[in-house]
Order: sequence, then structure tokens, then C-alpha cells
Amino acid sequence: MKVYPVIMAGGSGTRFWPLSRRSRPKQFLDLAGEGPLLSATVRRLPPLALPADTYVVCGPTHARAARRLLKGVPAANVIVEPCARNTAPCVGLAALHVAARDRKGVMLMLPADHHIARPDAFRAALAQAAGLAAKGHIATIGIRPHAPETGYGYLKVGAKLPKGRGRAGAHRVERFVEKPDVITAARYLADGHYLWNSGIFAFRADVILDEIRRAMPVLGEQLGAIQKALGTPAYKRTLARVFPDCPSISIDYGVMEKSQQIVVVPADFGWSDVGSFAALPDVRSTDHVGNVAEGEALVIDGQNNVVLAVGGRPVAVIGLEGVVVVDAGDAILVCKKDRAQDVRKAVDELARRGRDEVL
Amino acid sequence: MKVYPVIMAGGSGTRFWPLSRRSRPKQFLDLAGEGPLLSATVRRLPPLALPADTYVVCGPTHARAARRLLKGVPAANVIVEPCARNTAPCVGLAALHVAARDRKGVMLMLPADHHIARPDAFRAALAQAAGLAAKGHIATIGIRPHAPETGYGYLKVGAKLPKGRGRAGAHRVERFVEKPDVITAARYLADGHYLWNSGIFAFRADVILDEIRRAMPVLGEQLGAIQKALGTPAYKRTLARVFPDCPSISIDYGVMEKSQQIVVVPADFGWSDVGSFAALPDVRSTDHVGNVAEGEALVIDGQNNVVLAVGGRPVAVIGLEGVVVVDAGDAILVCKKDRAQDVRKAVDELARRGRDEVL
Repeated sequence: MKVYPVIMAGGSGTRFWPLSRRSRPKQFLDLAGEGPLLSATVRRLPPLALPADTYVVCGPTHARAARRLLKGVPAANVIVEPCARNTAPCVGLAALHVAARDRKGVMLMLPADHHIARPDAFRAALAQAAGLAAKGHIATIGIRPHAPETGYGYLKVGAKLPKGRGRAGAHRVERFVEKPDVITAARYLADGHYLWNSGIFAFRADVILDEIRRAMPVLGEQLGAIQKALGTPAYKRTLARVFPDCPSISIDYGVMEKSQQIVVVPADFGWSDVGSFAALPDVRSTDHVGNVAEGEALVIDGQNNVVLAVGGRPVAVIGLEGVVVVDAGDAILVCKKDRAQDVRKAVDELARRGRDEVL
Repeated sequence: MKVYPVIMAGGSGTRFWPLSRRSRPKQFLDLAGEGPLLSATVRRLPPLALPADTYVVCGPTHARAARRLLKGVPAANVIVEPCARNTAPCVGLAALHVAARDRKGVMLMLPADHHIARPDAFRAALAQAAGLAAKGHIATIGIRPHAPETGYGYLKVGAKLPKGRGRAGAHRVERFVEKPDVITAARYLADGHYLWNSGIFAFRADVILDEIRRAMPVLGEQLGAIQKALGTPAYKRTLARVFPDCPSISIDYGVMEKSQQIVVVPADFGWSDVGSFAALPDVRSTDHVGNVAEGEALVIDGQNNVVLAVGGRPVAVIGLEGVVVVDAGDAILVCKKDRAQDVRKAVDELARRGRDEVL
């Protein structure tokens, strides 16, 4: 069985400003100290899958950077979306490319900007999901929760799959649920039947295209138009015409939540979606009082801070706890750690002031 | 009566790092938004005293900058100390220069790095002190305290001066006291007989030289040696030889605290010694939630912060209260406001690392 990883690298968040920019979004940042998240995502796949079989989907602004970064990935495997339309059109477009090469090829849909502490366990879970996918299932990876996280979607585990090879531990998904409030999240954690939705899926190209046609018939037709042009000189023009009209909907919402056929492989491989600067202590080494420090950071009488002095200047932090300080060279952020989600407010204000050169 | 202001500009603190540097200490910084503190000190004296009669004492590193800054002050009035030896030798050296021009000239000793909110009241108090000095007194300005400050020295007010012209409100000084702890400071405030020691003095050149000879005979002799060379080609050489051996003692400790002859003019003119970044809200305008902001500072959901974005880059501060953030261009400080006295710890650490270019 050959698997085709498809790395979704179209994200353009603001939660890592001022490190992240429009021209250099999160997946291009070395947030975990292992190189850019996108490179690490490709690099942790072998021997399960090889770079030559790996696809990357991203926007036109980042295609060149992605190709330069991912030396082993063939340039043609970098699929360019003319514009961002969330994950359902992204998955559909990637499925067209994989299907053209291998109609029943097993796709592994992977976000480009996650961190995995235990790659061996990660690949084992992916291999099981891929095996289920090869048999026609749509498989997702559910992460065993260890905290009442409100920043993740959850899924509720249903019945065990009937016994069989490659099915140990796999279950049906009873339902997907949106990001909960903290009370609900605590209930999910205590219940034991809820897993974090990792956003990682495995399915055959033909299966997901069928599912899209059934659940999202309009998108199905749009993909059909693109498919006709695939491999012809009309492809780029057709894509540019059709893709912007595709519904901007996530694959979770558009397909997965409507299907009764999803199975889940529960797993625990030190997964983090690195959602904000506040997550860095989970994926980086800290000093003995919990500070993450990079560059010429001087943390004096302080603990549990994140200090990234990547601008080449000394950054002294005195008497503070739970604060994020980032010097990116041309812009500086100082933020209470529990407000790290609000970094976008600074980005919004700078946009309002027309300071595009730091956005 | 002609008065000769002598501005003591030899300070070299670290509490305003990274704005202040060895080459640009506090008195050269525009901390109050009125230009460099040293310039503002000279500028607020007329019509009481003119720049042509104003002297500045500073170290060799800063003489050129002082001359360039103070256009109205004659270059010869910038007296260069070969090295810092606290205020007693500084006062003695300045007294030699003034005495050579006007033996009984009234000197006004002024720190270079204070802020005065009400210059009219300031000049009125100085004029009264100068009048008392002309009659042979050593006069100081005592500030009516409005808080139990532990960062200032105090003086205890003694008996009223006998009635007479220019004596209204003036008292003898019963004693000088060191910076108190907060309990003692609160007692001083409640007592009503204690004033803050402003470090501002008025005396005749001949009177202070007599007092120094009496209270500090060794310094008296050293000054005598310098005096002999004053106005001759041997001056600079003699100063360089003698001055470094002078005792490094403050004029308060060396002379004032030992004299029974000191009088005080109580006053209240919005005085601040601008002791640290935490003092800036007292001398600068704030927004409606107490933030001091300079440059491209974006304070979002925060209050009572001091954000100085003087490096030309945007500095976003989110969800914080009571924090000092300074971007000086080549170094950055983030410090809890009530820890602003500890900025020197960062300076010490950078010195230990040999980062002289940012010190």
C-alpha cells in the first residue's frame, strides 16, 4: 500500500505575530526548535511515506517558499490554491491530483503546523489509519485528551469496529463537536469517550471524492470541472476561474460531520497544534522555572515567561511572570500569556494604521 | 546680587537603561518630554540666572555633549571632573571656579536630572535661598512631602529664623536623615517637621570653601592645590593629578550634616528626581487609564504601563498592567513597574557578558 501525504499549508493566522507575517505564516516558523513546522511535518513521515509521494497545498504567495524549503518534494507536488477556501475545497483539489496518479491512492491529510513529540507513535497511528482507509474507510486520528482544552474540537467515540486485522482500538465516530466551553470540556474529559479532533484524516482519493459529491454536490461539480482540465494547458485558467467560487467550508463541517462512516484511531503521540505563543512551553525546552528563552534573552527574577529575542538584540525581562515577549527585529510584542489569543488585536490595529510592512 | 547656577551633571546611573548608556546618561535623556533634562535645567533658570553665568560640572566623556547641548552656556563654564568623586569634590571644584570670578558669588547647586512642574515657584524658592546665601547662610530647598517616599533623603526642620527680609518661612535644619524605610517615612510624613532633601543648595563660594576646609580638611588642601593652578597652563595637569585622590563623599554627608549653620527654604514646586521609569507617569502626560506611551506604542487592554517605543518600531502591549516596556533600538527592556529599580541587574548581567556596545 502506497500512501500519499497531503500537507495542508494554506494557513495564514496572526497569532504568532510579530514572528509570523503575511509572507511567512506560522507553518514557515521554527516554533518548536526543529526547523520550520512545515519541514518537520514532511521530515517525520518516512519511512511511512516518502517526500516524492508527498503533496503540499498552499496559496500562491507561499508556493515558492514551500518548494525551496522542501527539497525532496517534487515541485509539481506543491499544489497551489488560487485563494484560501478552507479545507473542503483544499482536500477535494488534492484528491484530484492524487487520483490522477493513483485512483485508489490512500491520502493522509496533515496540517502543516502541528508539533509531534513522539514521531514513532505518530507514524504507527497513521499507518493504522491508512490501512483502514485502504479498505474504504474514512479514518481520523483522535487524541486522548489530558486537559479540558477549549481550543480544540472534540469527537465522541462510538462502537468498536468488528474484529479484524488493523482494527485494534479503532472505533466508529459517533459525532464531531465544536470547541467547547470549559465546563463542557471538563465533562468531556471526565466522560472518557471524547477525543481531541487532530484534523488528521486518511482516506482513498476515490472515496473522499465520492463523499464530497454526496455531501457537497456543488463543490463536487466544481471539482469535476477542474478534474477535466487537470494535466491540460487549461488547468491553471480553469482553477483560477472555478476555485474562488468554491464554498469556503471545512472538511470537518462539510463532509465528516455529515457522514456516518467515519472511524477513529485513538492515539497519544505528544500532539500539539501550537495554537499560540502560550503553547511554546509544551513544545520547547524550558529552564528550571519554566521560562522559554531564545536568543539574547535575559530573564531576571521571572518565571513561566516566553522570551523570543530573535531580532539579535538583548531583551531584558525583569520581575515578570507568565508574559510573552517577542522581538522580531522590526516589531515587538509584549503580551500576558493568557491573552496570547488576542495578538490579532495588535495586527488589526496595525492594519488599521496602514503599517503593512510589519504585517 | 548675581547668582551662579552650578549644574551637577556628572551622574552615570543605570536605572534608565536601555535609554541611558555610559555615553548618554540620564541627564541627557528627554524623560519628561521637554528636551534633555540637562537642557531643561538650564532653561528654567532665567530670569533668575542667565546661561552666561551658569556652570556645568561633568565627566570627560560628556563634556562635548554638554557643550553642544547648552548653546548659551560658555564653553569655559563646562567644568570637567577627571573622574567622578561624588558631590563634595564637585562642589569644591565649582566653588574654585566661581570664586576666581566673584569671591563672594552666590552659587546655586542644582542636580542636572530633576523635573520641576512649576518653574515659577521653583525660581521663587531659589531666589529666597540665594538671598539667604548672600548673607552668609548655607541654604537648602526642602520639599514638602506628599507621600511616604523611601527613595529620598529627608531633613528635619528646626527653629524659625529670626524675622527679617527674605526670611519668611525659612528655618534652621535640625538634621539630615538618610533614605528611611517605609514605616519611618510614614512617621516623617505624619510628623509634619520633615521635608524631602532636594539636593539643591545655595551658598557663597567663599562660605562653602571655608566650610569644606573646616569639615573636610584633606579635601580643603587638595582644593588649595588646584586653586593655585587655576587659570595657569598647569591647571589641567594639576587637576588630573589631585582630583582622583579626593575623597568620594557627598556634600550632604561631608559638610551639610556636620554643620549647624544650614537653613532651609520649604517649598512645593512639583519636584521629582525622576528616579526610575516608574516615575514617568508623574512627569509625563498619561492616557485616561494611566498609560505613558511614546512612539508607535499600541497598548491594548492595559493600564498604568510605561511604553516607550523610541526605536522606531511598533511595540504592541496586550493585557498587561503596571509594566515598563522600552525599545531603545538596539536593546529592549520589559520590567514590572515596581521593580524598575532593578534595571541595573540587567545592566550588570550584560556587563558580565561583555556586551559593552549596549551599555
